[in-house]
Amino acid sequence: MRCRRCKADAIIDLRRHNAAFCRDCFVHHCHEQVRRAIHDYEMIEPGARVLVAVSGGKDSLALWHILRELGYEADGLYLGLGIGTYSDESGDFARAFAQRFDLTLHEIDLPADLGFDIPEGARTVRRSPCGVCGLSKRHLFNQAASTHGYDIVATGHNLDDEAAVLFGNTLRWDDEYLARQFPVLPATDGFVRKVKPLVRVGEREMAAYCVVLGIDYILEECPMAVGNRHLAYKELLNSLEERSPGAKAAFLFNFLDRAHERFADAAVVDKDDLLRCTICGSPTPGEVCAFCRLQARACAAPDSVPVTLRGAAS
Amino acid sequence: MRCRRCKADAIIDLRRHNAAFCRDCFVHHCHEQVRRAIHDYEMIEPGARVLVAVSGGKDSLALWHILRELGYEADGLYLGLGIGTYSDESGDFARAFAQRFDLTLHEIDLPADLGFDIPEGARTVRRSPCGVCGLSKRHLFNQAASTHGYDIVATGHNLDDEAAVLFGNTLRWDDEYLARQFPVLPATDGFVRKVKPLVRVGEREMAAYCVVLGIDYILEECPMAVGNRHLAYKELLNSLEERSPGAKAAFLFNFLDRAHERFADAAVVDKDDLLRCTICGSPTPGEVCAFCRLQARACAAPDSVPVTLRGAAS
Repeated sequence: MRCRRCKADAIIDLRRHNAAFCRDCFVHHCHEQVRRAIHDYEMIEPGARVLVAVSGGKDSLALWHILRELGYEADGLYLGLGIGTYSDESGDFARAFAQRFDLTLHEIDLPADLGFDIPEGARTVRRSPCGVCGLSKRHLFNQAASTHGYDIVATGHNLDDEAAVLFGNTLRWDDEYLARQFPVLPATDGFVRKVKPLVRVGEREMAAYCVVLGIDYILEECPMAVGNRHLAYKELLNSLEERSPGAKAAFLFNFLDRAHERFADAAVVDKDDLLRCTICGSPTPGEVCAFCRLQARACAAPDSVPVTLRGAAS
Repeated sequence: MRCRRCKADAIIDLRRHNAAFCRDCFVHHCHEQVRRAIHDYEMIEPGARVLVAVSGGKDSLALWHILRELGYEADGLYLGLGIGTYSDESGDFARAFAQRFDLTLHEIDLPADLGFDIPEGARTVRRSPCGVCGLSKRHLFNQAASTHGYDIVATGHNLDDEAAVLFGNTLRWDDEYLARQFPVLPATDGFVRKVKPLVRVGEREMAAYCVVLGIDYILEECPMAVGNRHLAYKELLNSLEERSPGAKAAFLFNFLDRAHERFADAAVVDKDDLLRCTICGSPTPGEVCAFCRLQARACAAPDSVPVTLRGAAS
């Protein structure tokens, strides 16, 4: 197996590209895929300040590395979610990466700084941990970016992630979610721009990128996500990809190129009509934003006993 | 397990309906599902003459039976496709059914009446047998309906078929096919209306319907279809259904109810602009319709040796 670019011995075979690469050309290939995504979807202008959502996993660390290699000004923000040893270890990987490459890593620790953790928040409001975690991340990354003067939040969602989310939204034909699914969400009043520069690279490529560059990352999946639908959809798409290499990318990019605009009118909240949260100042359709409501309820709950359950006990 | 309707012992459990039924109530349930599909999609007016596309399989025989039970005037058309013993046997099942219930069955035999069979046609034009078969069926059912004064062609596509086709079209986000996928295609000049009254019932239900009513049908799948993508998509949807009963129906009906209209403008050929085939008179965008071109090439080929291959041999 020879490298497509330089004919040296290849270290990785990418079936959907019908190509194999040596170490250096594979790194170059990953950079080019991210460069192309940034260009095609007009994600980051030269000189923009980018805040990378860093989890300590392969995708976010590879993203941060690639953005710096491509010359962007990119700092990181790590959120301590309070998910036991998983959070302790993922934080260590994020810090070690920042130290090794001499980068600025901001940190917010949910238990220490905000008074609750994800498992507790989920129990209190009786939602899935993944739902509460997503709400918290969206809020805190946006708020931190606004506070510290970043123009853009970049997340490590890769091709596999985006295809799996699209798959779930398509199974239900959920117009509102289909309308929102795009690699770049423009800035609006109170919201910084969100971008997903890894949309053209797969999970396996990002793992390989970290391995060949000696970037250590947390291997464990989040213990709260085990068995969720998202992972089942990934497996199912992998079985299709196995049968027809390129099927996964075709599913995602044909949607983005041809079908996404057909759902544009399904976005529910008109962002121009939002009020300001009376607690944190974030845009919200109501008086208090969903995150501040979550925080208030989670912090009011005695240890591990949700208020709603306590009130309802008979 | 008790029948939901009459509390007798149930013979079948339908997880997506969260219901079980005894023999008679299951038959009633199938009739009601078909009645509802016909009503919801305005498929058949009282007094309309329906031509059922009969293959000798469970779906088309059950469809024919149910349409008669619901009081519709429905005759059958069986196409002999020339696919070896599969065609011989499927024809026998179709004829036995018509005889038992004293129904009118038209027949067209491709080899005897048109001079070629599906395997030969596929080799000649170098297309998949399923593609050539679909083209032939669409043409011949429409032509026979027009000739014999039927208003509507009804086909036995069930929920599993339609969900699998939708799945394939969605994986590629093929707008043109998504625009065309609907349980009723209206009549236009030269085309009779096409309807799929089984869209609300699954494959397993139609097999059970035939079994409980003693309707004999060909069990074998068409040997030309083995291993095709359609069957792989069915398996994949079955694995989703296993995990979440109702997922398959939600995928199909949420598309039909919410998303289909978003693709309406993607239908490519404007049926008002069609010419008439100079050979058979069918509507066609060119001078000679695709079926007559296929027939001409297949009939010109010497036994089993396609003309294109003979001309190109070196």
